[in-house]
Amino acid sequence: MASRLQGRFGRLARVPLAIAAAAGWGSTQGDGAPRPPSIVVILCDDLGYGDLGCFGHPTIRTPHLDRLAHEGQRWTSFYAAAPMCTPSRAGLLTGRWPIRSGMCSSRRRVLVPTSAGGLPPEEVTIAEALRERGYATACFGKWHLGHGASHRPLAQGFDQFFGTMHSNDMGRTEDAPKGLHAFRDPREVYWRVPLYRDDAMLEPAVEQATLTQRCTDEAVAFVRGAGDRPFFLYVPYHMPHAPQFSAPPFAGRSRRGRYGDAVEEIDASVGRLVAALDQAGRAASTLLVFTSDNGPWRADPEVGGDVGPLRGGKGEVFEGGLRVPTIFWGPGLVRPDTVLDLGSALDLFPTVCGLAGVAPPDERALDGFDLGPVLRGDGASARRHVFYYAGTELCAVRAGAFKAIFVTRATVPAGRASHDPPLLYCLDRDPGERQDVAARHPREVLDLRARWVQQRAIASAPSQLEVR
Amino acid sequence: MASRLQGRFGRLARVPLAIAAAAGWGSTQGDGAPRPPSIVVILCDDLGYGDLGCFGHPTIRTPHLDRLAHEGQRWTSFYAAAPMCTPSRAGLLTGRWPIRSGMCSSRRRVLVPTSAGGLPPEEVTIAEALRERGYATACFGKWHLGHGASHRPLAQGFDQFFGTMHSNDMGRTEDAPKGLHAFRDPREVYWRVPLYRDDAMLEPAVEQATLTQRCTDEAVAFVRGAGDRPFFLYVPYHMPHAPQFSAPPFAGRSRRGRYGDAVEEIDASVGRLVAALDQAGRAASTLLVFTSDNGPWRADPEVGGDVGPLRGGKGEVFEGGLRVPTIFWGPGLVRPDTVLDLGSALDLFPTVCGLAGVAPPDERALDGFDLGPVLRGDGASARRHVFYYAGTELCAVRAGAFKAIFVTRATVPAGRASHDPPLLYCLDRDPGERQDVAARHPREVLDLRARWVQQRAIASAPSQLEVR
Repeated sequence: MASRLQGRFGRLARVPLAIAAAAGWGSTQGDGAPRPPSIVVILCDDLGYGDLGCFGHPTIRTPHLDRLAHEGQRWTSFYAAAPMCTPSRAGLLTGRWPIRSGMCSSRRRVLVPTSAGGLPPEEVTIAEALRERGYATACFGKWHLGHGASHRPLAQGFDQFFGTMHSNDMGRTEDAPKGLHAFRDPREVYWRVPLYRDDAMLEPAVEQATLTQRCTDEAVAFVRGAGDRPFFLYVPYHMPHAPQFSAPPFAGRSRRGRYGDAVEEIDASVGRLVAALDQAGRAASTLLVFTSDNGPWRADPEVGGDVGPLRGGKGEVFEGGLRVPTIFWGPGLVRPDTVLDLGSALDLFPTVCGLAGVAPPDERALDGFDLGPVLRGDGASARRHVFYYAGTELCAVRAGAFKAIFVTRATVPAGRASHDPPLLYCLDRDPGERQDVAARHPREVLDLRARWVQQRAIASAPSQLEVR
Repeated sequence: MASRLQGRFGRLARVPLAIAAAAGWGSTQGDGAPRPPSIVVILCDDLGYGDLGCFGHPTIRTPHLDRLAHEGQRWTSFYAAAPMCTPSRAGLLTGRWPIRSGMCSSRRRVLVPTSAGGLPPEEVTIAEALRERGYATACFGKWHLGHGASHRPLAQGFDQFFGTMHSNDMGRTEDAPKGLHAFRDPREVYWRVPLYRDDAMLEPAVEQATLTQRCTDEAVAFVRGAGDRPFFLYVPYHMPHAPQFSAPPFAGRSRRGRYGDAVEEIDASVGRLVAALDQAGRAASTLLVFTSDNGPWRADPEVGGDVGPLRGGKGEVFEGGLRVPTIFWGPGLVRPDTVLDLGSALDLFPTVCGLAGVAPPDERALDGFDLGPVLRGDGASARRHVFYYAGTELCAVRAGAFKAIFVTRATVPAGRASHDPPLLYCLDRDPGERQDVAARHPREVLDLRARWVQQRAIASAPSQLEVR
């Protein structure tokens, strides 16, 4: 994001968006019809709510993301679909609560290399919906939605794939010390994670230090090779999930240790990607979304991330587990603002369908809302509720400022506690969930309980997460 | 900050600062000599580290301050001189640890209306130093450094004063309910706080709801009336100290309750002030500093503020007590950046003296460092240590990333605990002070203990805080 961009953004920021919209997002197809915008979704792994400069981190430097937040929209109440990796990704790509696809379980939290299942072929992903409309599609990063023939990226709407099928801490070797020690001072030999290109294994054990860089290289090449065709580019970075590895010059550079190195490398990678969009003349016709799959791992302050003002972390239904740092950016598409409205990763599917002029699949229930009016600055979010699942269990409900927690659980199956009356927090006034105000707000408790009962009626599909 | 400013800031941000400096800060006196820059210091009361949008608050809207942070410098490790009001302000205005002036005590935390003392006349304030150089000086807000004839603003270097001598929660009436109830649902009749203009009482009980607005009105009028003369404008807002009051349209507007209303009114007030600087043609020759006197009151989640990722709050020596959200802004004076260097309110005195070309008083020890090189972007902060006092007791020391806490105390005199070995935190990696790493870093413990012993040798001046 060099000075070349600054001037253009500065100018665009003052152009009423209605004009940009009337101009067909600033670009037309050869036949004069408006060209649908391209979509870039960058998904971090275990990045905490407080881990970016623009979300208040004191020592992690994220100048590129800070600039995107300033030029676009910083969403402060945006939620992952689940507090764990696999169900969160399933929700993001399908726009449906993971219980509908069986991508969550009461016994297992995520898919592992010995799991039999994966995202069912009958599910429709964003990639499938946009490919129907002529989009080029690609996924570069961590898939984690199944490695069977019918579950892989190329079976789920992506033209291209480069990355790993599972998390970067899976395939742990006998060289690795026990427990947290492997993450506090990690070495490449502790893990053997296979790298894939499309459907074929490329390397039996990828070098983790170059993973972020190589995924970014692929993304940049994809943008350069897209020509005039609209594209859907999904970049689910492996980092900053433990173990954190970074390539030079990022390794050892940040003040936040390996975790900060990984986040700063992602920040610079986003900068590279935006520069590539600009060089390809695509920046003004692209929506970029930056978010995280769930909150940070809180087992160790240095190995895991930070939740900023929130409470809890990965796997929990306190805010730190699901509320994620989210930026929408797109000159001409997104009106600069800080957005306090409710949003969810489930909303990306209908939102990008709206932008692309694609009718969402009507044969199945969609749980997301089109955020287009908020992005354009001409309306509020239609989302009224956020649901907090741990595995298949609906634990908490938010409506407006209030959130009722009926069940707290840190892990599946351990650490479960029921609350009757539920814990009630006013998140607008008490983002850290410090003060239970159930006694002062009986009507909100009633309303949220009714919504909880209603949502629990949604049946779980058979779990895809069990091992063979 | 209308669009009129955007273009100029965008342009200035790309002008090398050396050029601006060589041009005499963009302005000259009538005789052709460079005109020294004006200084605006905006000090909030009990504003927490996490209470601005640009420091990560999820629901308090601070678009003006966010913009200043983006155009200027956001300092993420900037410290108040003390975790309580009176000593903090004494440190800021004198550049000296409050124990040197007697503006702290082992028994009382702040000055009260029955205190006999105040800032000793022999202390030199920023206002006195700059007035010597021909600056117009003014203080509009909360003084809290003594109300005797020799302690008042007009006796301490200020040409003008408008505001109160003490905090807005002092002068509590018999109408007020006990304890926190008076703050949860505050009414004007619960407090009688006298308002002063210069040395004369103007109103026996100021209307608190209009305090921020009236102080801003005074500040705007002062800027407009300054002509070409350089000025030092000190605006120590009463808010968001409890009880929070705001004028329309801010009362009831924020999602964060009364606390958020007060912060959003201050944000808009800063916007008014910057607009006034711009209209007077003074924006390019003014350094604006925005900071807080100490961390937020943590007795109640709604009544007090938020510390973001930090631990503790007002009165404590955990980070939340002293680390404050700080912005330096000045087109042509300040190079846009996020600054991780150590800074302290004590550094303002030598920094503004450096900008104004004033030699600091040499007959007394100054504890601050000139931050000019960091502001210009051509050097690092010379500050190597931060000290954490509670009252007269030195409780903790930070050097670089590490902080050793030898004594924790929440209030004076209650809640004191000694730690041997000290608690040691790596703040760069663990800003929330969650993991004591003393056992892993014996050398850092030794270094910080030596510095602690050395600093404790500074003798305390007789306390000014005792009651008559």
